[in-house]
Amino acid sequence: MPLNTTISPVSLRLKTDLQEKVDQKTKPLGSLGQLETLAVNIGLIQDSLSPILSKPTILIFAGDHGIAEAGVSAYPQAVTGQMVGNFLAGGAAINIFASQHELALSIVDAGVNADLAAHPNLINRKIAKGTANFLHHPAMSKDDCESAIQAGMALVNQQHVNGCNCIGFGEMGIANTSSAALLVHCLTSLPLEQCVGRGTGLDDKQLQHKLKVLQQALDFHGHLNAVDDVLAVFGGYEIAMMVGAYLKAAELGMVIMVDGFIACAALLVAHNINRDLLDYCLFSHVSSERGHQAVLSYLNAKPLLNLELRLGEGSGIALAYPLIKSAVLFLNEMASFTEATVDQKITAP
Amino acid sequence: MPLNTTISPVSLRLKTDLQEKVDQKTKPLGSLGQLETLAVNIGLIQDSLSPILSKPTILIFAGDHGIAEAGVSAYPQAVTGQMVGNFLAGGAAINIFASQHELALSIVDAGVNADLAAHPNLINRKIAKGTANFLHHPAMSKDDCESAIQAGMALVNQQHVNGCNCIGFGEMGIANTSSAALLVHCLTSLPLEQCVGRGTGLDDKQLQHKLKVLQQALDFHGHLNAVDDVLAVFGGYEIAMMVGAYLKAAELGMVIMVDGFIACAALLVAHNINRDLLDYCLFSHVSSERGHQAVLSYLNAKPLLNLELRLGEGSGIALAYPLIKSAVLFLNEMASFTEATVDQKITAP
Repeated sequence: MPLNTTISPVSLRLKTDLQEKVDQKTKPLGSLGQLETLAVNIGLIQDSLSPILSKPTILIFAGDHGIAEAGVSAYPQAVTGQMVGNFLAGGAAINIFASQHELALSIVDAGVNADLAAHPNLINRKIAKGTANFLHHPAMSKDDCESAIQAGMALVNQQHVNGCNCIGFGEMGIANTSSAALLVHCLTSLPLEQCVGRGTGLDDKQLQHKLKVLQQALDFHGHLNAVDDVLAVFGGYEIAMMVGAYLKAAELGMVIMVDGFIACAALLVAHNINRDLLDYCLFSHVSSERGHQAVLSYLNAKPLLNLELRLGEGSGIALAYPLIKSAVLFLNEMASFTEATVDQKITAP
Repeated sequence: MPLNTTISPVSLRLKTDLQEKVDQKTKPLGSLGQLETLAVNIGLIQDSLSPILSKPTILIFAGDHGIAEAGVSAYPQAVTGQMVGNFLAGGAAINIFASQHELALSIVDAGVNADLAAHPNLINRKIAKGTANFLHHPAMSKDDCESAIQAGMALVNQQHVNGCNCIGFGEMGIANTSSAALLVHCLTSLPLEQCVGRGTGLDDKQLQHKLKVLQQALDFHGHLNAVDDVLAVFGGYEIAMMVGAYLKAAELGMVIMVDGFIACAALLVAHNINRDLLDYCLFSHVSSERGHQAVLSYLNAKPLLNLELRLGEGSGIALAYPLIKSAVLFLNEMASFTEATVDQKITAP
């Protein structure tokens, strides 16, 4: 893939100093658990002992999927466009949670199969009205896939120019757990059954149908070796834009907040393009969609929340964001033992 | 125990309507996971389809423990009073997290072994300068224990009068994991080793010493049958105040947010006095202190967070509070399918 990605691994220059700063706070050593790891990681990403989260933002990428016509989702394809309308009107879960935590939210039409009216909060980057059905064709042409990746990169670059240093990506796209399942299967070699879940709520019979359809798609296209082939054949416009978005965010040294199963599938693609990407990623939650825990384990990732969410939209990011903020706040604002005149641990004799 | 507690079980009158309201929101059925359960539970507690969290508050109860002289903690006893000073100065973890989420915070001197200077945010309910060492005496007299319970009740009543309907209790007390371990052991019959953890950070040898000391205390006092005996003999002033606080909060129909191991040990005592208490409780987190998971399982409780916290102070409550608020917000503010004109699930043929 002719992508010009130059991600630097994070510098470990301040690692000892950050840990020392955490350890001097007025609390038993290690007693803030995962928040302590988080604080150190954010400090490393920003190469600072006093990191700052500036203009935290969620971009939601929406796109439709040709495979929806094979009956792999519990909801009709029209819901993708309708939910974009709901995001713009402020009525969806992500609107409520983003507003609660003062996260900026923008919606990107990556490839919705509907004519969406212009709206100040809708960014039109529509590549096509949905992908092709990958039972019979590649979902995207290589050119369109590349365009989507570039669009994702440009959108993140614009956010960075506007002063954002902390970003997460959500998605909306009926049938996109089917795309994500195939991406995860192809890129991790996990058995297909372990990658295919109930999505928006399939019953047992529907789940078996989805699995059969996805196996047929794998059989039709044969073995795909290169990550760009896997993405173009089984991906989606919103997923490809997320791939570009992840890569650019890491290149720009931003804190990246990772959402659920589809967001992780896109991350997996980007990770195959540049492994240093992971240094910049914080994992918001493990969802109840089958396959998500497996991807997280594959990436050696430890999510913050485990609330049996399976909504997408970036909702896991919004719900985990206060914890990320708490980590930065305690690092910057808590008193040290010296400052507060509190005795330290008794040294063993 | 001559406690006048009249807790009503929550009414299930609105259960179906609350679930229906959740199910009509624009999201796949069940896709907000534990937040959906939370929303329904809060609706039931308030007997309302549109619950409100009013003046959410954390009370921190601080008290010292005679058993500290047996070397069961990694920190010296003076830290209890010093940390109260830190709370009042705003430098502790709980200050940072409470301020982040606009939670009111008050500190109660239940029995700190120090003369604490008056402060607008310090409530003086000191029963004594620390408990007696339960290796040789009951920690508290029955009268003092009863006074502490009544003080906790009165403090919560005052909060309720001031308009608070959502409250949580934190604690500070060097050596209080020793008290909590014995309370849990006596009230659940779990083996002592499963109730005794590293507290603020004991090493293996110190942990063995703590276990030995606590076994000696059990042997010295013999079998205690009544919950008020268990509390007086092995508890602490801050724990007894929390017991009263839980009971009064449930009696007043408040949403109760439960913190970590010591908070759960106090809850267990209160639960032995009145089982209906649990209807009002939301469990913020499971800590990494040994025994906490066991108590939660015993109470059939499902905590919101699992971040390996082990700090106390109500810090788990403050960190989980935004999720509790998210549950209420989505219930009240998200659009329904009808309101947003979004298609519902395809009905299976």
